[in-house]
Amino acid sequence: MSLLITGIGELVTNDPGVGEGPLGLLRDAALVLDGDRVAWAGPAAAAPACDESHDVAGRAVLPGFVDSHAHLVFAGDRSAEFAARMRGEPYAAGGIRSTVAATRAAGDEELRARLHRLVDEMARQGTTTVECKSGYGLTVADEARSVRIAAEVADEVTFLGAHVVAPEYAHDPAAYVKLVGTAMLAACAPYARWIDVFCERGAFDADQAREVLAAGAAAGLVPRVHANQLGPGPGVRLAVELGAASADHCTYLDDGDVAALAGSSTVATLLPGVEFSTHRPYPDARRLLDAGVTVALASDCNPGSCYTSSMPFCVALAVREMGMTPGEAVWAATAGGARALRRTDVGRLSPGARADVQVLDAPSHLYLAYRPGVPLTAAVWRAGRRR
Amino acid sequence: MSLLITGIGELVTNDPGVGEGPLGLLRDAALVLDGDRVAWAGPAAAAPACDESHDVAGRAVLPGFVDSHAHLVFAGDRSAEFAARMRGEPYAAGGIRSTVAATRAAGDEELRARLHRLVDEMARQGTTTVECKSGYGLTVADEARSVRIAAEVADEVTFLGAHVVAPEYAHDPAAYVKLVGTAMLAACAPYARWIDVFCERGAFDADQAREVLAAGAAAGLVPRVHANQLGPGPGVRLAVELGAASADHCTYLDDGDVAALAGSSTVATLLPGVEFSTHRPYPDARRLLDAGVTVALASDCNPGSCYTSSMPFCVALAVREMGMTPGEAVWAATAGGARALRRTDVGRLSPGARADVQVLDAPSHLYLAYRPGVPLTAAVWRAGRRR
Ligand SMILES: [Zn+2]
Ligand SMILES: [Zn+2]
Repeated sequence: MSLLITGIGELVTNDPGVGEGPLGLLRDAALVLDGDRVAWAGPAAAAPACDESHDVAGRAVLPGFVDSHAHLVFAGDRSAEFAARMRGEPYAAGGIRSTVAATRAAGDEELRARLHRLVDEMARQGTTTVECKSGYGLTVADEARSVRIAAEVADEVTFLGAHVVAPEYAHDPAAYVKLVGTAMLAACAPYARWIDVFCERGAFDADQAREVLAAGAAAGLVPRVHANQLGPGPGVRLAVELGAASADHCTYLDDGDVAALAGSSTVATLLPGVEFSTHRPYPDARRLLDAGVTVALASDCNPGSCYTSSMPFCVALAVREMGMTPGEAVWAATAGGARALRRTDVGRLSPGARADVQVLDAPSHLYLAYRPGVPLTAAVWRAGRRR
Repeated sequence: MSLLITGIGELVTNDPGVGEGPLGLLRDAALVLDGDRVAWAGPAAAAPACDESHDVAGRAVLPGFVDSHAHLVFAGDRSAEFAARMRGEPYAAGGIRSTVAATRAAGDEELRARLHRLVDEMARQGTTTVECKSGYGLTVADEARSVRIAAEVADEVTFLGAHVVAPEYAHDPAAYVKLVGTAMLAACAPYARWIDVFCERGAFDADQAREVLAAGAAAGLVPRVHANQLGPGPGVRLAVELGAASADHCTYLDDGDVAALAGSSTVATLLPGVEFSTHRPYPDARRLLDAGVTVALASDCNPGSCYTSSMPFCVALAVREMGMTPGEAVWAATAGGARALRRTDVGRLSPGARADVQVLDAPSHLYLAYRPGVPLTAAVWRAGRRR
């Protein structure tokens, strides 16, 4: 079944071969979906005949957002911790432990229901590709349960046993690192494509992170790293050294970190919702872009440091706070996320791509930054299916 | 017809006589709407029988937002100006003139359709009381048309002929001020309750503002003032001197301004969406609250300096950027807005109030700041009618 989307005021293809600039922009365009794929994108006047058609009346059409960093398998409520932080208490990674206790205590059905609800909420805001990490279980059984449930719903699953040291191992972190890289990895690897470590003071140091990521790589998982969020550190260099797909956060970088990223295929994934919600300074996207680093934007949706699921909000923050243009931010939230997940089938709207389409209730992509906070998602297709 | 809303996890009444603290919070509560009014609010166990009931399953229920500052009668598109600003060009009041040209050229039906669309978009985000200003016509006929169309939809209408000097009068501002206070006022007063002036360098000085506001007062309109947005100035003192209901923006205040507000019944209406979208420093809400000033939050929705219509976004910004607690921000966006409009029937959920109710897809009001950018509006009633 083919569907012709007509009346597109502005089409963001992210394919410079199809349209203008890095966004591959076309005006007065049309798009053809065939089954779960994009079959054609081009000027409205040249559109082929299709089984059905849908007129978007001059609105902008973009690839669905690719949210390459989220923590969605959890239970509990940390709104009181958030309110305390807004009264001046600093964010500390230790708050993760309260979510761990609640997650362990929750039944599968509760975890599944919360995950479904968040993924659905994301889709209502235009997100069509979701990465989901474990990391609130921190036992072999609880981590395995987390990746198993995540794999039921998420496009990409990441094993993050090395989120923080499990409370039972507080006095023997080395034993916990060993557990993560052996029995826990063995139980989780069948459900995950990626392995991630929170490399930060208070979580795991460079040697511990390297041990975990190397074990993961030996089990066929590809590394990604939570790096340089709360202060300078070895995370970014380690990510580049190990060929990680992405170094995430990148808030505190020295010139060597930026040069290392620029000379690598590791994407810098920026998560400005975290800085918004932890009242900390934003990463400098402009510096990274000017150095030639590939930048992605993601939500980091999680109950502690950032409970937004809104990619439009992240785009608006990137423009307001990180020196990105609206076009750069939209690219980073779509094509950039795809790069961070090493996916070539999402984050673009050109022939062969998965038919992941969002229609904005606005004439151009600029409105995602121009109208912050306003729900602008008018329609979404994921793999050709209208939600 | 009476409706019982049950299963309320947290009820914000804004009535300290009904519940805890300034928000008048009740937990495990119920609310009764009778026709267009609130008939009862209290503990679920004591709820009376009603004709119908609606279970909100533990969600938070709040008064609808009272957006006391918006500019919604306009045509044209200024997204390119926004994008240029994000590349470093400063905001200047003169950009208003491009909207003036487009608004004058538009037909009534276009203006009406845009206004309806924005008010509907606001309602989808929980706003149930809307103030709307003229100010993009700047001729007698175009301003009269603006307030007439605004009055068809908005709860409160403000005549803002003194937005900027009309282009035709660029070389004789005194003549324009005179026109605003005479023929234009006469044509607009039948449709408006309020008169407003943009008192700022590049718009109107204190003497001009006083002349316009005094003429408005003589015609029965109550003053409000755009004051101290782009730099220090006389606007706030003038607002207090004239007994204005509200001084809006209040970004650049000296100690005398703060003391004047604290000793008056003039509300300080803060519009943080403007600072977000113009890349300027935020007003210091904490300083105002600590001095005892009544603070309101509003969107300032307009196509130039701030095109958000989202009160949840303004609440989140107020907490992140202006030193307000989530509770203070929610109060300011509901009860505060009502004070700024001198309304006692909205911005609260206690007996006799208009039945303006929003249900959040969240267990407490904290989530408006805890989950920035996420559309959390689960249901809205305005004057007892479900939208
Ligand atoms: Zn994370
Ligand atoms: Zn205004």
